[in-house]
Amino acid sequence: MSRTVIIIGGNAAGLSAASQVKRLQPEWEVIVYEKGSYVSYAACGMPYFIEGIVNKFTDLFELSPDTLINERKIDLRLHHEVLAVNPERKELLVKTPVKEETASFDLLLIATGAQPVVEGIRLNPAGAGRIFTLKNMEDMQELSAFLHEKKPHRCAVIGGGYIAVEMLEAFLARGLETHLVHRRDQLANTFEPEISKLILEKMRQSGIVLDLNRAAQELTEEGEKVIVRTADGELVFDFVLVATGVRPQTDFLEGSGITLGLKGAVAVNKRLQTNYPFIFAAGDCAQTTSVITGQPAYVPLAPKANKEGYIAGINIAGGQEEFPGICETAITKFADLGIARAGLTAEGAQKSGLKAIKYTFSSRSKARYYPGGNENIFSAIVIDKGNGRFLGAQLAGPTDSVKRIDLYATLIQKGITLEEAFRLDLAYAPPFAPVYDPVILAARLGRKEMEA
Amino acid sequence: MSRTVIIIGGNAAGLSAASQVKRLQPEWEVIVYEKGSYVSYAACGMPYFIEGIVNKFTDLFELSPDTLINERKIDLRLHHEVLAVNPERKELLVKTPVKEETASFDLLLIATGAQPVVEGIRLNPAGAGRIFTLKNMEDMQELSAFLHEKKPHRCAVIGGGYIAVEMLEAFLARGLETHLVHRRDQLANTFEPEISKLILEKMRQSGIVLDLNRAAQELTEEGEKVIVRTADGELVFDFVLVATGVRPQTDFLEGSGITLGLKGAVAVNKRLQTNYPFIFAAGDCAQTTSVITGQPAYVPLAPKANKEGYIAGINIAGGQEEFPGICETAITKFADLGIARAGLTAEGAQKSGLKAIKYTFSSRSKARYYPGGNENIFSAIVIDKGNGRFLGAQLAGPTDSVKRIDLYATLIQKGITLEEAFRLDLAYAPPFAPVYDPVILAARLGRKEMEA
Repeated sequence: MSRTVIIIGGNAAGLSAASQVKRLQPEWEVIVYEKGSYVSYAACGMPYFIEGIVNKFTDLFELSPDTLINERKIDLRLHHEVLAVNPERKELLVKTPVKEETASFDLLLIATGAQPVVEGIRLNPAGAGRIFTLKNMEDMQELSAFLHEKKPHRCAVIGGGYIAVEMLEAFLARGLETHLVHRRDQLANTFEPEISKLILEKMRQSGIVLDLNRAAQELTEEGEKVIVRTADGELVFDFVLVATGVRPQTDFLEGSGITLGLKGAVAVNKRLQTNYPFIFAAGDCAQTTSVITGQPAYVPLAPKANKEGYIAGINIAGGQEEFPGICETAITKFADLGIARAGLTAEGAQKSGLKAIKYTFSSRSKARYYPGGNENIFSAIVIDKGNGRFLGAQLAGPTDSVKRIDLYATLIQKGITLEEAFRLDLAYAPPFAPVYDPVILAARLGRKEMEA
Repeated sequence: MSRTVIIIGGNAAGLSAASQVKRLQPEWEVIVYEKGSYVSYAACGMPYFIEGIVNKFTDLFELSPDTLINERKIDLRLHHEVLAVNPERKELLVKTPVKEETASFDLLLIATGAQPVVEGIRLNPAGAGRIFTLKNMEDMQELSAFLHEKKPHRCAVIGGGYIAVEMLEAFLARGLETHLVHRRDQLANTFEPEISKLILEKMRQSGIVLDLNRAAQELTEEGEKVIVRTADGELVFDFVLVATGVRPQTDFLEGSGITLGLKGAVAVNKRLQTNYPFIFAAGDCAQTTSVITGQPAYVPLAPKANKEGYIAGINIAGGQEEFPGICETAITKFADLGIARAGLTAEGAQKSGLKAIKYTFSSRSKARYYPGGNENIFSAIVIDKGNGRFLGAQLAGPTDSVKRIDLYATLIQKGITLEEAFRLDLAYAPPFAPVYDPVILAARLGRKEMEA
C-alpha cells in the first residue's frame, strides 16, 4: 500500500530521511517542504566560507535539487513554509509561493532545524543591515556581500559558543579588527573554565580584542556604525555578528498537540516518534537524551541531525532502528588551537548528582624529540569516583591532536572504566603520540585520583 | 623485610619496572644490569634521527644515568651482561667489565628486549662495515657516522615491516637513491594486501626504487660496495640496511628452566610472572596474549614494553596488577602517508577459525569543501559475521587522519558491535572529519555486509 510521507525541512535530517524512505519504499510519495531557497548545504562550512578558505559558496552544497528530484525521486518544494500541523486530521497548512493550502500525509517528519536566538539584546532597528546572525545560506550570503561591498574594518562577535569561536577566527583571518563581546569572563559553560581560559588566551595572542564581562543590552545601527550598549558604556563597530545560540524552529507547532520539551524542541522516543506515532522529528528541532544521565538534552549538531534523519527515514519506511542519544561530543578550532569536548562538565556532572571529580594535565601529543613535540595538549577529565568511569573530557591542543576526543566519547558512552582504559592497546609512533598516549595518561592519573 | 630485586635490561620495560619498585618499596635494593653503554633511550626515534629531523642523538635519551642513580636510587650497572640464570638458587652469572661473578636476587625481572634477525641471508663477512641493522643506539651511531663520513649515494633496505618503511623514508629524505629489496611483492603480512599496495604505490611515487619479489640470499661486501645476491641476479649498493624483523633476546635463558614460548619469548601469566613466580618478564623479550583470540602473541612494540614494565614493577613490589594482552595496534608513516593497524588481518582471523569478512572503502577524512578535503583515507575493516563485532582495521591516509585507529583498537578490544559503533557520538567539524566520520561509515557499511 502506497503512503504519502511529508517531510518539513530540506536539510541534513530531512533529506537523509527522504533518501532512506525512497530507498526502502521506492513507490511511496515523499514530499519535502523547504521554506528557503536552498537545500542540502553544509551549514558547518559557512564560517570557513566567510574566512575565505572555501572558494565558492556552491562548494557547500551536497546534493543538488536536480539530483534529489530526478535521481532520488523526491518531490522537493522550495519556498513552501508549513504554518501548522493538525495531527488528528493528518493535515498541514502550507504557504506556497502563491497561496495557502492544506496537504494530507500518512506519515510526517518534522525536520525544521533551529534558528538563532538573540536573548536579552534589543535590536534597533530589528532588521538592521549591519547586525548579522549566521544560521542559513541566506545569512551567509548577506554577510559575505556586506564584507565585499562595504569593506568594514572593525567588528564584534557577541557570544561564547562554537559559532562565535569560528567566526572570530574567520574575521581575524580576513584582516579585520575583531572583538569578542561577551557577558561573562568565560566562554559558554559547555567549556570547562580551564579550557575556556586557554582559548581566550590564544585569542588574545592572535590579536582578538577581548571585551569580556560586557553584556550587550542593545544594538543600534547609526549610519555606518553599530553601537553596542552595555552596562559599562558603549562600543562602536562597523558591524556585529550575534552568535548567542539557537533554539528549535518549532513555533508553528504550538497548539498542535505535539509534545514539546527542552527549549521547545520536539519530544521524541528512541525511534524518533513524537507522541503521535505517525509523526517523527529529527535534527536540530528535536530533543534527544544524554546517554550518560538518561536526561533530556538539546544538542543542535550535524552528526545527530544526519544520523537521526537516516534512522527516522528507515523507521518511517517501516524499519526498527533506535537512536540512543548523544554524549555531547563536539570539536572546533581557533586558528591552530584545536578544541574538543565529550560528556559532562564537572559542574554538569555534580548537578546531575554524580560523584564527579575533575583533574587536568598538560602532556605531549607527539614524542618529545619529534618536530612539534613541544606543543602540548591540555586535558580536563571528569570521572565518577563511585565507579571509576569517565564522565567527561575536554581537550585543547594542536589541531591534529584533539580528534582523540572520539576515544573519550566512546569510553564515556560505553561505560569503560579507567582500569580498562589504561589497558587499551593504543597506537604509538613518534610522529603521532608519546609512548603513553594522553588518553592512557588520563587513565593512569585517574587511578591516582580514585585512590586519593 | 628488604629485598634484592635484579632487573636485566636498562630500557623501557626494565627502567619502568625499576622506578615503580623504588616508588613503592624505597628501601629495597634495585640493581639494573645493562649490557650496552646506553639506557633509557627512545629506540623508536632512531629512524627520525637518521632522517635528520631529530637534531642531536642525545635528544633521544629520556632519563640520564645520573637521574636514575642519584634521584631514583637505582643501582644501575652499564656493561654488565647476564650470561645465565639459575632460578633454583636465585642466582645470576654476570659478566662485568672486569670479570664474571654470581649475583643473588629475591626477585628478578627479565627485560632484555629483542635483537635483529637476519634469516636466510648469509652475511659475507659477518661483521661487514657497510651492512647495517638498527636495533640499538650503537647501531644508530655506526650508521650515522657511516653516512656522514662515506657520503654514500645508493642504498637498499631489505625487509617489509615498520622499521623498513621508516628507514626508507629516512634515506630518501637524505637524498639517497633508495631501494626496497623485498622477497615478496607485498610488505609484511601484518599489512592487509590493499594497504600494502597503497604504501608501495606511495613509495614508488616518492622515488623509492622497488625491487620486489627479490629474496636476498647473500650480502657480500666488496671494496666500497655491497653485492646483494638474489635468485634473479645481483644488485649493487653503497650500503644495505637489513630490517627483516627481531626476535626476543633470550638465548642466555636456554637450559635455565624458565619456560619460553613463541619465537623464544619468555612465557608469562597476566601478572607477568614466568613459571617461577619470583621471576618476571616484560617488554620485547616477553610473550603476551592476543586480547581478541586469547592465543599467545609476540609483539615487540614500545607501549607494551612500557606498560608491562610499569605493571611488572608494581607486582614485584607486592601489587596485584594485570596486563591483559595486546590488540596488535601499530602506527607509522611513509612521507605524508599515515599507516595504522589494529586487531587481526582477514587472513589471520580466518586462520583463527573466526567467521571473518573484510570490506574496504575510501572516504574523506575532512569535509569535502575544507582544504585537504580531497585527500582520502582508505580503510580495510574485518568483522566477525557471527556476532557483528570488529576484528581488525587498517588505515592509510593523511598523517592527521590515521590516529583514529585507536578508536578501532578500543572497539575491537572491548567487543563493541557495529550496531553500537554506528551510534557512537563522534566529533564533527569541517577541519576534522566529514559529518559521517570514517569510523561511523565503517559501521554503517559493515551493517550492510552483515545482511549480505
